Amino acid sequence: MIKVNIEGTLNFIDESELRGTGTARDFNMSADTGWVNLPKSTENLAEIKEVAGKIRGESEALVVIGIGGSYLGARAAIEFIKNTPDSTDIYFAGNNVSGEYLKWIIDRIGSRDFSVNVVSKSGSTIETAIALRFFKELLLTRYGQAGLKRRLYITTDAGSPLYEMAAREGYRCLEMPPGVGGRYSVLTAVGLLPCAVAGIDIDEMMLGAREEMETGRDNAALYASSRQALYREGKKIEILASFEPVFKSMGEWWKQLFGESEGKAGRGIFPAYADYTADLHSLGQYIQEGERTLIETFVTFDRPRVELDIPGGPIHDDKIGALAGLDLGEINRAASEAVKKAHIDGGVPVIELHAPGLTAASFGALVYFFQRSCAISATISGVYPFDQPGVEAYKKNLYAILGL
Amino acid sequence: MIKVNIEGTLNFIDESELRGTGTARDFNMSADTGWVNLPKSTENLAEIKEVAGKIRGESEALVVIGIGGSYLGARAAIEFIKNTPDSTDIYFAGNNVSGEYLKWIIDRIGSRDFSVNVVSKSGSTIETAIALRFFKELLLTRYGQAGLKRRLYITTDAGSPLYEMAAREGYRCLEMPPGVGGRYSVLTAVGLLPCAVAGIDIDEMMLGAREEMETGRDNAALYASSRQALYREGKKIEILASFEPVFKSMGEWWKQLFGESEGKAGRGIFPAYADYTADLHSLGQYIQEGERTLIETFVTFDRPRVELDIPGGPIHDDKIGALAGLDLGEINRAASEAVKKAHIDGGVPVIELHAPGLTAASFGALVYFFQRSCAISATISGVYPFDQPGVEAYKKNLYAILGL
Repeated sequence: MIKVNIEGTLNFIDESELRGTGTARDFNMSADTGWVNLPKSTENLAEIKEVAGKIRGESEALVVIGIGGSYLGARAAIEFIKNTPDSTDIYFAGNNVSGEYLKWIIDRIGSRDFSVNVVSKSGSTIETAIALRFFKELLLTRYGQAGLKRRLYITTDAGSPLYEMAAREGYRCLEMPPGVGGRYSVLTAVGLLPCAVAGIDIDEMMLGAREEMETGRDNAALYASSRQALYREGKKIEILASFEPVFKSMGEWWKQLFGESEGKAGRGIFPAYADYTADLHSLGQYIQEGERTLIETFVTFDRPRVELDIPGGPIHDDKIGALAGLDLGEINRAASEAVKKAHIDGGVPVIELHAPGLTAASFGALVYFFQRSCAISATISGVYPFDQPGVEAYKKNLYAILGL
Repeated sequence: MIKVNIEGTLNFIDESELRGTGTARDFNMSADTGWVNLPKSTENLAEIKEVAGKIRGESEALVVIGIGGSYLGARAAIEFIKNTPDSTDIYFAGNNVSGEYLKWIIDRIGSRDFSVNVVSKSGSTIETAIALRFFKELLLTRYGQAGLKRRLYITTDAGSPLYEMAAREGYRCLEMPPGVGGRYSVLTAVGLLPCAVAGIDIDEMMLGAREEMETGRDNAALYASSRQALYREGKKIEILASFEPVFKSMGEWWKQLFGESEGKAGRGIFPAYADYTADLHSLGQYIQEGERTLIETFVTFDRPRVELDIPGGPIHDDKIGALAGLDLGEINRAASEAVKKAHIDGGVPVIELHAPGLTAASFGALVYFFQRSCAISATISGVYPFDQPGVEAYKKNLYAILGL
């Protein structure tokens, strides 16, 4: 279960404000809340594992083509849970239009066998369509028509243009369940297939999400209502911060989740991510003494995955002799305490989130916790959490410029 | 030369405001402006190249130990200019206290020969000191006492604790020039030694900086004064955005430069970075319709380093047939125009910066442009650009908790 500690916000808001406006309140169920019960609907996991087994059996690399909610969750999970590459490497393409980036991926695959998973809910995203053209060529050149058919996997909504292409051309297609938006889709085939190919135990991930679903409602509401209470007090930017570098891509996933759900109607807390202690030496000055419009939310973990003791001995002629023998995790915990105190003293309210560890179950729990919190938070703020009307504006201009 | 276009801000500010408060104004010279003339003082480049040649001659990997200004610039340069690894790989350690991250670097080095460059202006940063202990052990175990002496290189201020350690224990030491703060140090040995080891032409980089120094003052002042005019109009967050993924680490460097220089006295524009088009599918909604407190600054380039044409032909049964044969760079340019128009229409002022290309000279020019702009901007804002008093608060707490 994800624990929430809001002690570090109580100089800035009154607890009664939380009870009044948030804790008991929930978001409205709608046609877009298919994600709520995903941890209970595990019948499609068998198909995902079967497909993953097939990919692992014949490929050393998987190229996942997708942008936004179609890749951020899978990338976050793989980095958080696995860190080091598996026997099957995962590359994320189609999340930009850079030739340099595309060439880099193709070079990295080299002569290894590979498969491709195209992920697009709408099935019509331009970045995805462009990258798909390049990788279709590559599959065809290397494996012929039959190999292209066998090695290209589609994840999309039933009835989308990609879905129809899969039917026409004979690619294996994993359907997205209805009522699950892109940024809420990491616990569907969108996130789970790349995870399973990377060797992650997706059953464990779903169990973690399910346990959070069953026990975490009050904690999610507390996080949501405290950040909204702070927003009403003029705190406009939330910095999510972790001391584990493997959490960084989850920070990017979190930025989409909250930014896209809440940033509308001229409202919304601006989401930023900080990677500590690194960013204490870059953003630290601003956080300590810049505009007092910040909220800082720490994510900490029971224990690091790797324990390393600081070396001692006579060759170390420096000022930190007292630290010899301490595990780096202890230094990180001390740094976390030190930062918290400094920033609260400097006028920054601090929310603390605590997760069990850097495991698949913990990742599943964090995903569910943040998704639920976000839906509650947007609802408190008075905006609908599950649409993104503003994303269309640039797409329309782009189609017009390109004559599509 | 870096070009600046502020047309996209003129719905939001009046040009007369720029003339009145910024364009002609400059920052005050002080004891901390040693960086101003760095592009003209190239006599130390020979020593840097000599040391780099020595490292390249006996190592396949270089571990750069440093945090904040002691690694962000070098990382940005190597990613921007080289992208793909050189025969000598560069790893950045000591920018966090994660055992997992440290182990990852040690695993990546594997059995390859390596050298270490410790970078710390003050010579007393705790993250740096901890990482140094690990790598000293590793060097000693693998190469013995003589190898440790030969393979450990120090970059620091004359007289610092690290400087004294180098003298006592016999390591080669590169001195930082006086009057250059950490975030202003990429054009000293701090950034130039790792760059030279990575195979970058540092003469070309300094020439680019020098040309910018001689010709770019008005442009830097225009960028500085327009962002400050927007800040006075209530724009509190600046999103630097690029369509080239290799610019991402430069975005991190920029965040430190501006955040640490301007974020003080309860003031400062909050610096954020966006990687397009990826982040249009995550932060795009917020930028289009969230709180109207944003400034967006695009960095574009003459032409991409890699040109790839979109494949055509009958196997591509999709909706983007009209794009076949177009280079990806053209799509990126169209996306840039589409985004600019959408965001201005949505109420976000857009500043455009244009750099020649993804080359060493262009990197040097951008560095000088941003450093000069930042100094001018902070001065307009009424804060001293070259200190960072707020970074000390967490350090003091950390020393206290650890009993140092």
